[in-house]
Amino acid sequence: MIPLKRAAIIAVGSELLTPLRVDTNSLFITEQLNLLGIDVTVKAVVGDARAELAQLFRAVRPRVDVVVFTGGLGPTDDDVTREAVAAVLERQLIEDEAITDRLRARFAARGFTSPMPENNRRQAMVPEGARVIENTRGSAPGLWLEDGERVVALLPGPPRELKPMFATLMDGWLKERAAGAVLARRVLRIAGRIESQTDEALQPLYRGWDQSSPRIAATILAALGQIELYLSTQTTSREVADKALDAATEQVLTVIGEDVFSTRGESLEEVVGERLAAAGLHIALAESCTGGLATSRLTDVAGSSRYVDRAIITYSNEAKTALLGVPPALIAEHGAVSEAVARAMAEGIRERSGVEIGVGITGIAGPGGGSPEKPVGTVAVAVATAGAATTSRLYRFHGEREQVKFQASQAALDMVRRLTARIVQPQGTE
Amino acid sequence: MIPLKRAAIIAVGSELLTPLRVDTNSLFITEQLNLLGIDVTVKAVVGDARAELAQLFRAVRPRVDVVVFTGGLGPTDDDVTREAVAAVLERQLIEDEAITDRLRARFAARGFTSPMPENNRRQAMVPEGARVIENTRGSAPGLWLEDGERVVALLPGPPRELKPMFATLMDGWLKERAAGAVLARRVLRIAGRIESQTDEALQPLYRGWDQSSPRIAATILAALGQIELYLSTQTTSREVADKALDAATEQVLTVIGEDVFSTRGESLEEVVGERLAAAGLHIALAESCTGGLATSRLTDVAGSSRYVDRAIITYSNEAKTALLGVPPALIAEHGAVSEAVARAMAEGIRERSGVEIGVGITGIAGPGGGSPEKPVGTVAVAVATAGAATTSRLYRFHGEREQVKFQASQAALDMVRRLTARIVQPQGTE
Repeated sequence: MIPLKRAAIIAVGSELLTPLRVDTNSLFITEQLNLLGIDVTVKAVVGDARAELAQLFRAVRPRVDVVVFTGGLGPTDDDVTREAVAAVLERQLIEDEAITDRLRARFAARGFTSPMPENNRRQAMVPEGARVIENTRGSAPGLWLEDGERVVALLPGPPRELKPMFATLMDGWLKERAAGAVLARRVLRIAGRIESQTDEALQPLYRGWDQSSPRIAATILAALGQIELYLSTQTTSREVADKALDAATEQVLTVIGEDVFSTRGESLEEVVGERLAAAGLHIALAESCTGGLATSRLTDVAGSSRYVDRAIITYSNEAKTALLGVPPALIAEHGAVSEAVARAMAEGIRERSGVEIGVGITGIAGPGGGSPEKPVGTVAVAVATAGAATTSRLYRFHGEREQVKFQASQAALDMVRRLTARIVQPQGTE
Repeated sequence: MIPLKRAAIIAVGSELLTPLRVDTNSLFITEQLNLLGIDVTVKAVVGDARAELAQLFRAVRPRVDVVVFTGGLGPTDDDVTREAVAAVLERQLIEDEAITDRLRARFAARGFTSPMPENNRRQAMVPEGARVIENTRGSAPGLWLEDGERVVALLPGPPRELKPMFATLMDGWLKERAAGAVLARRVLRIAGRIESQTDEALQPLYRGWDQSSPRIAATILAALGQIELYLSTQTTSREVADKALDAATEQVLTVIGEDVFSTRGESLEEVVGERLAAAGLHIALAESCTGGLATSRLTDVAGSSRYVDRAIITYSNEAKTALLGVPPALIAEHGAVSEAVARAMAEGIRERSGVEIGVGITGIAGPGGGSPEKPVGTVAVAVATAGAATTSRLYRFHGEREQVKFQASQAALDMVRRLTARIVQPQGTE
């Protein structure tokens, strides 16, 4: 059989045709397919309309080797993907009893006393010859069809259901049919720099990569509170690709050093967590304008209960004094949004919770509360550690409330990262 | 001529087929077309490949009244939109001298001393019968073609060029051909129900809406911790549309009552915030497994400092006792993840902070920490209020750590919403 080279992705759902929603599943699917050397040549979005969907499938089918559908596999009348695909492929829809049984069991397990609604049985109707891709996180099973030399996958729309199912395909049916070419990518994340600066610093590297074998392509993207550098290379083996990307990553580290906080696409909270865990350190946070976001991000990481001790979120000056011991006179002198108060918050939470690292964040997230001297976006961050001077810095972020919150949490986590790098380094865990 | 009702949007550009970029022009175009009562029924992205583009245009053309292309109008070989469209419509490409002159003038005005490169003349090649849409911000002119009763627009990809050009169409050629209809939408958000149940309950309404004048279309979507119901209608005026959607919303409220938490697309934290602010109530939270997420969500809302007093995030039993006054014996008897402890947390934070509403959340976010009796996803939520019994409930959520955290925060906010509804209702602020 010819190897799979060209793919189409078709997202199904009327909500994706409104001004409110954009299909993002296709980005993940594209990334995955590229890893197998499969190129995406067309993407489309159609509503929950059978005729439209069938028409589109007919149009793209002759031009690609893989068609991936997402969405439209639910239990309702709106969910038309199964029917449309079966119609185009001229296959009967037949009830798969094993699916019906699993649906009933799933329904019962969730503790509903009434029986499963009859419309859920639609999810057990599969085109003749389809193989089932199990969905461990939702009721809609995925389907895999061979269509001559072509393959067709039907997957549910919710990303948390789709992703593990697609991973299963990547390790199995898709991989078996792929050519073995490898398109490998790496994401480096950078904090504490601006995009144009970073781009300028990296220019000499770009020129070298463009001439190297394998050639390395680089794309730089400014995201909120960080810069992302995407490196990619297309070669014959995973080993060659990894070696080339490792070397390129080393070059970037030489040029921009510790501003690179992650070289494998890890999030800042993951990197901070790894360092704290490796060094056996514990952290406590005192948040004001971030309203718990910094702590919530840290606790998004599995196992974070090993190093996150506690956090106190104080909006009022009274609570800062009562719960963190910030002297009222300090607030009166410097204002609640000041490095002095952030330092007192960091030291207060650290001492009261008896941990090695205390963080204080105080600022003006907006839209109200700004002044000429301290406009919206002004945020003071401090990190207190045992036996060393407390570090602090005053930032001025741009953007709306949620953007200010995120950037402030990012600045605080990055400050912790830089401090723990110094503490952790001797152990060589990075 | 028949009025324009259905549109397709085709974005052209290989960069839009990578994992790094998503087409957002179509969201703007959709919003604009909807204002003229034109529905988008299909969207697609193709690379800079003439055959692909032509094939896709051929497929969608018979099914729509408007086709909007974005991108692929530059001066290079990659820029294939003009050629592909002319081929499908069987029109000659002829040089528009006026465009060539403008391009030359533009080139000279930018201070280049050398003459305009010859390949720029590609941008002056237009399909026979096309009208030019002037581009004041870039070199690529837009094109407008009548294709029988259908219209076809070719626009450049950069949003800052596209947007003013599209605005010109909206006020002119598109408006002249639109029906004068309005497509209006409403998003209802629902908590505490599952999709198939909700769908079944709403079936009779769907049937009525399908027959009603104006007809109302409904799409139901399961999101994490909530269900979204999209209602839309196409009518002759904004007033008629609003009246129809108001009536449909009322019907939904009659069927599923207070499980509907928002009727205008507001988030749960916005709705909770409005109620707290309207009633002059203050809230304090004690979070364990959610790690600050519930408080962070509440403080995403502008003005939340009026009603969010403080929060304490305690992972350890010791901190629950020291900071919230949870009796160690209670934890020993029921376990840290129990309704009893959630209630003690809610009551502890409420009393210690002197506010009207206290929230307690304790659970197992996973992936570790589960047991047969209390598997990962088990979360107890409690809300304590002044002068009434504390409410609590034990949930069992599915999903990964972040999903459990989100659903737990959603359950807590929804419990607050339901309680404050009762407190606020007499004032009639909803």
